[in-house]
Amino acid sequence: MIVRYGEIGTKSRQTRKWFESILINNIREALVSESIDYKSVFAKHGRIIVKTNRAKESIDVLKRVFGIVSLSPAMEIDAELEKINKTALKLFRKKKRELNLEKPKFRVTARRITKEFPLKSPEIQAKVGEYILKNDEAEVDLKNYDIEVGVELMEGKAYIFVDKIKAWGGLPIGTQGKVVALLSGGIDSPVAAFLMMKRGCEVIPVHIYMGEKTLEKVRKIWNQLKKYHYGGKADLIVIKPKEREKIIEKLKGLKKENYTCVFCKFMMVKNADKIAREFGAKGIVMGDSLGQVASQTLENMYIVSQASDLPIYRPLIGMDKEEIVEIAKKIGTFELSTLPEDEVPFIPKHPVIRGSWEEFKKLYREIFGEEPKKRGC
Amino acid sequence: MIVRYGEIGTKSRQTRKWFESILINNIREALVSESIDYKSVFAKHGRIIVKTNRAKESIDVLKRVFGIVSLSPAMEIDAELEKINKTALKLFRKKKRELNLEKPKFRVTARRITKEFPLKSPEIQAKVGEYILKNDEAEVDLKNYDIEVGVELMEGKAYIFVDKIKAWGGLPIGTQGKVVALLSGGIDSPVAAFLMMKRGCEVIPVHIYMGEKTLEKVRKIWNQLKKYHYGGKADLIVIKPKEREKIIEKLKGLKKENYTCVFCKFMMVKNADKIAREFGAKGIVMGDSLGQVASQTLENMYIVSQASDLPIYRPLIGMDKEEIVEIAKKIGTFELSTLPEDEVPFIPKHPVIRGSWEEFKKLYREIFGEEPKKRGC
Repeated sequence: MIVRYGEIGTKSRQTRKWFESILINNIREALVSESIDYKSVFAKHGRIIVKTNRAKESIDVLKRVFGIVSLSPAMEIDAELEKINKTALKLFRKKKRELNLEKPKFRVTARRITKEFPLKSPEIQAKVGEYILKNDEAEVDLKNYDIEVGVELMEGKAYIFVDKIKAWGGLPIGTQGKVVALLSGGIDSPVAAFLMMKRGCEVIPVHIYMGEKTLEKVRKIWNQLKKYHYGGKADLIVIKPKEREKIIEKLKGLKKENYTCVFCKFMMVKNADKIAREFGAKGIVMGDSLGQVASQTLENMYIVSQASDLPIYRPLIGMDKEEIVEIAKKIGTFELSTLPEDEVPFIPKHPVIRGSWEEFKKLYREIFGEEPKKRGC
Repeated sequence: MIVRYGEIGTKSRQTRKWFESILINNIREALVSESIDYKSVFAKHGRIIVKTNRAKESIDVLKRVFGIVSLSPAMEIDAELEKINKTALKLFRKKKRELNLEKPKFRVTARRITKEFPLKSPEIQAKVGEYILKNDEAEVDLKNYDIEVGVELMEGKAYIFVDKIKAWGGLPIGTQGKVVALLSGGIDSPVAAFLMMKRGCEVIPVHIYMGEKTLEKVRKIWNQLKKYHYGGKADLIVIKPKEREKIIEKLKGLKKENYTCVFCKFMMVKNADKIAREFGAKGIVMGDSLGQVASQTLENMYIVSQASDLPIYRPLIGMDKEEIVEIAKKIGTFELSTLPEDEVPFIPKHPVIRGSWEEFKKLYREIFGEEPKKRGC
């Protein structure tokens, strides 16, 4: 299997070595945890080679390893023209049957990663192309081809392939440190966590307990997200907030139930903040999308953000619901997010839409007898 | 022109009225500023009607008004079956020529927004379909059709159309308040600003002066972004930071040039914070994408975030460069972002990759003789 990675390549040589080693480690972890046998995984000349006889299954797994841009199941043979021709023809025919085409258009793309091989790339392409034309129904078309036969030569070996499978891209998990992600059980928060994973973060998932039904749902969601988290270690952390009853009581007494949601989110972030420090996470991830619900306003997010001095990352902030749902379906969390939840009895009829920080502070004092303050203040 | 909007529809009746009025206002502003004549713009039964004889030009403009999901240039006629048939056939033929198809597959989709019309939707569809079949080469196919003839009936009028143009969606600018967006002249920051506009924010663009060439470029970029900012008023604000020389000097003296970039960004946010308060903006927008460059780390973003208590919105945080570039090309800022810039003489060879907040505070004291502190602390 030829594994191609993107952005890593653009980094300094030293960073790149480090990225490669983490990516290789994540690939190994992925294959092992899905119990797919492999002989070896190693980096060579800007690509990673995975030696395995279980190409098909490994594709499904490696597609979910971030940092990988594309995958090509390839045959490794000695770099001799005759062998290359035969193998290329064999794979070409396999692909032709697969597409069941009478007379497919094709092209050959050769690259010499190392230069020992006597022929230059264009010559190799010509030779292999001729050989296929001579032995099968086909026609060369460099632009609109049905089949592309790839030939990569390095260190006396040739790698022949006819498939190039697109993966998620992103950065290897672990290269960007840790963040805490709040998982509510809704559609959005898992997508937000996913996108931070994709950019190389190890995600520590935190769920604020609402009830058993919701908890079970969130566990299912996290188990699905884990399939993209190879290299990350975290298990779901569930927090039962002690202060909740107290807050709800007091707000009711003050006839300020409309602030319940803002307080609830504020306390979530406060809890996430605690966890973040314990585990050395450098940020908090939330699924906010601006204006999606009446209460997801700049004003309310301002208040909630005051609960921690850690940056709050909101990868969905600029997305429409439609776009979020699309990702949720792709990554397999959508169906899970639509499973039944526990009724939340204390949701107010009219949550405050543009909460006031001054008002919030006043209420906070009433409830806790002190100003809300974040670390480092 | 029938204008369809999405998420707005899902809000409470009252909020919805408010959204509609803002969207209508933005549509008017768009048409006026592009000097496209129109008779009237009004909301009716969950859609907006724009009466104009300049459908073609108005499409290009309205596609850039956020909150709009799709557009259909339509003929408005009295709701009488014969007229509907004739108009439907006429538009069908026009579309047929446009696609130049011998015998197109088509379907008719009718909706009664208000119910005065005697026939029910399925009956209308049948009648109109028959009429087209009787008078032209065509064949009905409800699944794989080349042409869809739309018929919408409301208040004695019928609206006939054969096109449905997709727009950006999002929320009308002005519905979500104001944010300050830092524009650097690079590829990312304009895309970040664009996405916040798309979610209904009025964006106040702030550029920290680097030189005339870069400023020129940023002006071009903002002029392009303005084409998506109908309803927003802001002009580019340019700030010449006084402290820069001092900081650079001191850091050089302290042999801590590696912190130059972090300081530079910190001061940018400090300046953005000032502007935000003057203009009542509730957040700051930045184009950070995690790990894109070695210095865009969680650690450095933590430090930078300490410059303001306002939430910093980073809509690109979870995106790969490739995805960002794709949007930049769509919205027409990419080419502008690749125009030449002023050389920045003080960029260090090795910017700190994981800056330490403690170290930063120490340096800040050395330079300014006081702790860095944010408002509200």
